[in-house]
Amino acid sequence: MRVRHKPWAIDMIKDYPNIVIPEPDQAQGKWDQVFDQAQPLHVEVGTGKGQFLIGMAKAHPEINYVGIEMYSDVLVMALQKVLDEDQDLPNLRFIRSDGREISNFFEAHSLDRIYLNFSDPWPKRRHTKRRLTSPNFLAQYQEVLKPEGEIHFKTDNQGLFEYSLASMSQYGMAFRQVWLDLHASDFEGNIMTEYEEKFAAKGQPIYRLEAYYPQHES
Amino acid sequence: MRVRHKPWAIDMIKDYPNIVIPEPDQAQGKWDQVFDQAQPLHVEVGTGKGQFLIGMAKAHPEINYVGIEMYSDVLVMALQKVLDEDQDLPNLRFIRSDGREISNFFEAHSLDRIYLNFSDPWPKRRHTKRRLTSPNFLAQYQEVLKPEGEIHFKTDNQGLFEYSLASMSQYGMAFRQVWLDLHASDFEGNIMTEYEEKFAAKGQPIYRLEAYYPQHES
Repeated sequence: MRVRHKPWAIDMIKDYPNIVIPEPDQAQGKWDQVFDQAQPLHVEVGTGKGQFLIGMAKAHPEINYVGIEMYSDVLVMALQKVLDEDQDLPNLRFIRSDGREISNFFEAHSLDRIYLNFSDPWPKRRHTKRRLTSPNFLAQYQEVLKPEGEIHFKTDNQGLFEYSLASMSQYGMAFRQVWLDLHASDFEGNIMTEYEEKFAAKGQPIYRLEAYYPQHES
Repeated sequence: MRVRHKPWAIDMIKDYPNIVIPEPDQAQGKWDQVFDQAQPLHVEVGTGKGQFLIGMAKAHPEINYVGIEMYSDVLVMALQKVLDEDQDLPNLRFIRSDGREISNFFEAHSLDRIYLNFSDPWPKRRHTKRRLTSPNFLAQYQEVLKPEGEIHFKTDNQGLFEYSLASMSQYGMAFRQVWLDLHASDFEGNIMTEYEEKFAAKGQPIYRLEAYYPQHES
């Protein structure tokens, strides 16, 4: 996602330590204290401008949401959206960091769900390891997710979705359900990202999957 | 597939016992003798009018092909196509039977590959068990395939493909590769079925996958 550089972004983020957690490593194992209430914990990796997670947090007050976003210039737009809301969102927090740090922020088997939305497709073969559904990431998600936890992933990128179906299944994951044209389906409660809203008008399909790590009897 | 009823179909099929194997149960474990040469064995379940398997048999003389088709009225059209060929096809045989009988025709772990092409989608939930990628079928394919054997499946039916991705992954299978728009991809050597040829002109995507049963260390 290309956005204008904002030299003031880092300072603004620092001004709201109650929304963008300043030292997320220290929150590991203590997220129940970060939030007002102990509730199921859902994390979005690559939260972008925040529309999806703000929409989810408003629709599901019974769930705590953490959005991880690497770029200050982008995250500050999500922060601004939160501040523009009429209501407080006590169940939504952000982390400014690389998604590959996720296991430093959350204890093993502490998350109920991870969302990946319109992740960077990294189409070149030599960049495969950067894709958020490549094996190294899947191993990290498995570590922080509860055994029955799920990954919910949507994208418009055909190549990334094809790769993800192969990569996740080869890792041993199973798909609870797959959508090859989400917006034409009867899926209810879809919260669109900023990108998805623009893209939807073009009439190309949005792909979606829900995946889990099957528990093998030992 | 709806085709005209042909009262003469069963008699014509009986006239070519060297092409449509009359007692396929008896061939179990003896396919090397049915064919001229002992070669890898690929089976298509629901072979329809035969264009795919005839094309494959011509392109790959180093592989033996068996097409299973339930309906005499359809299979006789495949037989006619074989007879119309300029050349003998010593590596192609047919079985007139239901696909669910597959394990009566082939020994355990004797097949290298199974093809499913544009199988009946059976869209109603109560017909789930009839879909050729439902768990009961996947168990039978696992029985007759070699451990490293593969299932190659293509369809234009979005609902069937979505179901199959979930069903196969939940069964424990992995996808070597997935295509969400086969005809726009760089896949080489695609042999089109009769249905695929007509459908391709409409511009809607053809879905394809290659799946295998991962071998777990015990």
